[in-house]
Order: sequence, then C-alpha cells, then structure tokens
Amino acid sequence: MPLLHDLESARDGSRIELDQVLRALRFNAEGLIPAIAQDNATQQVLMLAWMDRTAIERTLNEGFATYWSRSRSAYWRKGESSGHLQRLKSLQFDCDGDAILLKVEQTGPACHTNRHHCFYLEVDGQTVVVRGDPG
Amino acid sequence: MPLLHDLESARDGSRIELDQVLRALRFNAEGLIPAIAQDNATQQVLMLAWMDRTAIERTLNEGFATYWSRSRSAYWRKGESSGHLQRLKSLQFDCDGDAILLKVEQTGPACHTNRHHCFYLEVDGQTVVVRGDPG
Repeated sequence: MPLLHDLESARDGSRIELDQVLRALRFNAEGLIPAIAQDNATQQVLMLAWMDRTAIERTLNEGFATYWSRSRSAYWRKGESSGHLQRLKSLQFDCDGDAILLKVEQTGPACHTNRHHCFYLEVDGQTVVVRGDPG
Repeated sequence: MPLLHDLESARDGSRIELDQVLRALRFNAEGLIPAIAQDNATQQVLMLAWMDRTAIERTLNEGFATYWSRSRSAYWRKGESSGHLQRLKSLQFDCDGDAILLKVEQTGPACHTNRHHCFYLEVDGQTVVVRGDPG
C-alpha cells in the first residue's frame, strides 16, 4: 500500500483521485472491508457491516448505504425492506485502508431488533446488561 | 447463536453472565472480531482494530484497550510504546455478536500518523481529501 503510506505524511487538504484510493484499499480474502455506520446527528455508533468495492461505489453514487450481506451473499441497501434507510453524509477511509466510516442520517432504528443501534449488550463486571427494549 | 437470538427480545436491564456471551461471540476464521474505538468525550470514532477472546478479557481486566495485531501476530496494548493509551469507559457487543464497540478515554492521538483519529481520508466527489496534518 505505497499510496496509503505516502498519504500518511500528506498535509491537510491534499487531494488524490478516488479511484486510486479504491484500488489501494485492503479488502480481506472475501473481498470485504468492515464499515462502521455512525449517526451524523448524535454521533452514536449504529452498526458494523461489510462492503466490497461495488457496495462502496453504490453507496457513493446513490447516496444511501449499501452493504454486502455475508449471510445472504447479496448486496443489501440498508432499509430496502424496512424503510430504515441510511442517507450518506460522509464516507471516510482509515490510514491503512482496511476500515470505512460512514456518517449517516438514519431513518428509524438501525438495528433489526428495532433498537436504535446494534450495540445494546454492555459489559458490567462479570455480567452483560441489555440496554434498551426491543421495538 | 441461540443465546444472542434470545437476547434480541430481552427487555432493558436484563442480565446474563459475561462468560456466556463471550462463548456466544462469532469470531472469524482467525478467531478475531472487529473492535471500534470511540472517544468517550467527543464521540469521534478513533480507529478499528481486532480482538480475540483473550484481548477482550485483558481489556476488561486491565481497563486499557488491548488488541490483536494481525501484522505482528501479537497482543498489543494500544499505546504501550507511544504512551497513547486508551482507558476503557465501556465495552459493548452488537446484536449478532460479531462486532465490539469500546468507548475510551484517549491519551494523545489514536493514529500512528499522530492525527487524532485514523479516518482522515474523506471522499469528496471523485477525489479523496486528507483531513488533518500529520503530527
């Protein structure tokens, strides 16, 4: 990843072609990268899902988050059946090109349990507490 | 993951043994789960790294984030060489047990480029803009 290595020392405001960065990303053996969805208004981390290059491009072109569903082996525009769409506000890659951060405007709950976010199992000592009622 | 499936419908405040949840987590073929570190004060997403069960337990027991370094094949207490430790404020698992959210008190920059966070490559149209100067 010489490109990403070079960008480590780039100054604020430096620009590079998107296509060059997409080609430098470090997809795993399945061709996927973890993508974090964060609520743009509240900054709450909503969920983590997976994207391949096509999912990234569809998300950027269409303006709504599309992931790769590993369980269904299919593209999955978040909310396509539930209506709980994620309108894209920004998309950022990390320093070594193996993680994505999406800031989104979340319609309705992000979690399939109808909780607002998926991270509702919180460690408390030697127990885990459920935070929030299911919808 | 029958346990996690059961917890989907659990009410707010329900409790279960930590060990049961740790055994129900869905580690990948390398025994790892992606872990998101979020700044507890600013809510900024700092980085994404990887944990196995031992890294989770060390993080909980020691109160500082410890990850598994895939490049070095070793445990890595974040900041052990740089001093940029992450003091744990909370640790949450997601609905299907294959992602972790850590809220941390970050000492110094989280990124090895000395930027505060790792997600400094932001898409802007057909280009990517570097956000923030390296340290």
